[in-house]
Amino acid sequence: MKLVKIEERRASIASEIRNAYIDFSAMDVSVVKITTDVVIDGEPVVGYGFNSNGRYAQSGILRDRIIPRIEGAPAESLLDDTRENIDPSRVWTAMMKNEKPGGHGERSVAVGVIDMALWDIVAKVERRPLCAVLAQRYGRGAPDPRVFVYAAGGYYYPGKGIDELRREIAGYLERGYSTVKIKIGGRPIAEDIERIEAVGDLLDGDFGRLAVDANGRFDLATAVQYAEAIEPYGLFWYEEAGDPLDYELQSDLAGHYRPALATGENLFSMQDARNLLRYAGMRPDRDYLQMDPALSYGLVEYLRTLDVLAEHGWSPRRCIPHGGHQFALHIAAGIGLGGNESYPGIFAPFGGFADDTPVEDGYVALPDVPGIGFETKGALMDLFRRLF
Amino acid sequence: MKLVKIEERRASIASEIRNAYIDFSAMDVSVVKITTDVVIDGEPVVGYGFNSNGRYAQSGILRDRIIPRIEGAPAESLLDDTRENIDPSRVWTAMMKNEKPGGHGERSVAVGVIDMALWDIVAKVERRPLCAVLAQRYGRGAPDPRVFVYAAGGYYYPGKGIDELRREIAGYLERGYSTVKIKIGGRPIAEDIERIEAVGDLLDGDFGRLAVDANGRFDLATAVQYAEAIEPYGLFWYEEAGDPLDYELQSDLAGHYRPALATGENLFSMQDARNLLRYAGMRPDRDYLQMDPALSYGLVEYLRTLDVLAEHGWSPRRCIPHGGHQFALHIAAGIGLGGNESYPGIFAPFGGFADDTPVEDGYVALPDVPGIGFETKGALMDLFRRLF
Repeated sequence: MKLVKIEERRASIASEIRNAYIDFSAMDVSVVKITTDVVIDGEPVVGYGFNSNGRYAQSGILRDRIIPRIEGAPAESLLDDTRENIDPSRVWTAMMKNEKPGGHGERSVAVGVIDMALWDIVAKVERRPLCAVLAQRYGRGAPDPRVFVYAAGGYYYPGKGIDELRREIAGYLERGYSTVKIKIGGRPIAEDIERIEAVGDLLDGDFGRLAVDANGRFDLATAVQYAEAIEPYGLFWYEEAGDPLDYELQSDLAGHYRPALATGENLFSMQDARNLLRYAGMRPDRDYLQMDPALSYGLVEYLRTLDVLAEHGWSPRRCIPHGGHQFALHIAAGIGLGGNESYPGIFAPFGGFADDTPVEDGYVALPDVPGIGFETKGALMDLFRRLF
Repeated sequence: MKLVKIEERRASIASEIRNAYIDFSAMDVSVVKITTDVVIDGEPVVGYGFNSNGRYAQSGILRDRIIPRIEGAPAESLLDDTRENIDPSRVWTAMMKNEKPGGHGERSVAVGVIDMALWDIVAKVERRPLCAVLAQRYGRGAPDPRVFVYAAGGYYYPGKGIDELRREIAGYLERGYSTVKIKIGGRPIAEDIERIEAVGDLLDGDFGRLAVDANGRFDLATAVQYAEAIEPYGLFWYEEAGDPLDYELQSDLAGHYRPALATGENLFSMQDARNLLRYAGMRPDRDYLQMDPALSYGLVEYLRTLDVLAEHGWSPRRCIPHGGHQFALHIAAGIGLGGNESYPGIFAPFGGFADDTPVEDGYVALPDVPGIGFETKGALMDLFRRLF
């Protein structure tokens, strides 16, 4: 078996939304298609990968460093011991050849995009859904039949008031989500509290089904001010109050806030996640970790991160990755994470799950097709066909 | 005043050398030329910037995100309050628009390349050497007349034995360097000790003029094994024993090693440097910090890092940046750092200083020309002319 072609394209996911830190007016992603010489049902097996939103396409690093290293590696060095399938960890070693340690960002996205496509191939060659492959290799034998997903929305955009926010959230509930997330920190606190109250109404006052996300905007004083204001609601979580690398702020905040905290989407390596566990005062009995494999050197690195979590007394059930992609959904079902993010209606067609698996009571099932199942998502496959 | 053109090119700095972690067979850098509409002596003022070795060219991020944002910003938003010169911190804000927090690597290099060129322009418009501009703005009024530099070499390469190492080091001493650095961790410890002994002979047994660098290769057990073996020599420093983000390892190591430790070249933001100071057990009375402005969002970010150092009780004299470039030499002289790295004979023509300022007794003077003084380095200007 060998990889015969690796192609990269850039795709726009621009939109009018903004969080407390950035807008998405020029946001794009890298998409890769990897073609193999394995033929199943008369067609070559191909894998697709892309990065999730927020950190831009990585065309330069992919084309200048990562893809040439894979193409330059001896084909057999990329295979597993059966010689009949790819070993993503061996491809990882090839991709990271002559890369210095530290500096985990951008490069981690480029590697994550390829890693996603490799796991799509691995599962297709095994003719099983990726979650089943992962459950057998790294999980408890069988995958979870369905995965908790929450609707991440409540972005700020021009002209959006409380009424528009209510309509947006009502739409998520109609689509089958039970838990929703809204942004905070982009408006004065009084207005954010009004937004929280308005969404709580739609949840019949069950604020435990509402998460809020400050996107790293706050200093400690503001983080604590929000903490004191929102603690009585008992929210699902309070996400990324301060700079993602300010572990001291995060730890101080935990001293002021008893309900669940969440962070991790802007940590892109095992080493960074380990520092979060060592220094940020995160609590394994209630808090959530949101590292996103597609932005963080892929599943190969995520498995290392899960090992470090276990050493620190954390269950994988405390992990609900950022990103809203089907890859993380398979990882969640296969390895037994706590759930997965979802962005209904935005970052299309990359967000969302199989066309024929609706969200029900806040959970979604995985399609019973080989690989990650991109082929079950019509709009995404249409885009892939246009790109390649 | 305005910036009228920003051009980026890639230049190879490939060589046969290797450290304990990577080889440099495909190493390259980004070079930028920024042309302004300011005319001095009949010529438009132009600034040059490039990244230092180890983290590759950043053509993709520069061309896709950083340069278009500068070009898209209103020209007056990039000027200082006099309206007669560029304000690098305002350009920084434009470059980082819609970039999420965290994930400091690659992007930090792209911004650093531009930042170097901007400071070259700022000083040329002021018609003074950059070190004089910096001394007035951020230092003690006047720059240091000369800067301590050490010769970083002792790389591993095919066929290189003790004799070749001796010849290399003797060459550095002949060139006027008093302190030298060699790599460790790429060979068995007994062989590395033999290399240390051989270099110590050339230094008349003054091992305090020899630094060693493991380039992040060691686990704690190996780091401590080396620490115990080399402690009696009282070396100049023991650099980057473990992974640059493993602050716990670094802190544990400090408990096993009394002489100076050094690290920081693979930390690319104020936030990462701050975590080093908070968690890694670094000692302000003896250890060294090596963050490299050219890889770390430029001098604008480095000034933030120096503020954090001061808050933690560190003198800027404990900083000896990685990178071996004239930009860091000006920062060292202007702000009062402890010195600068130098790579005699490798990474040419980017490494090294002005053609007419020889190293004497381990110190080098700065040329009295406007800007960073790339124009005093013939081979570098030849390359710039070929590239642009």
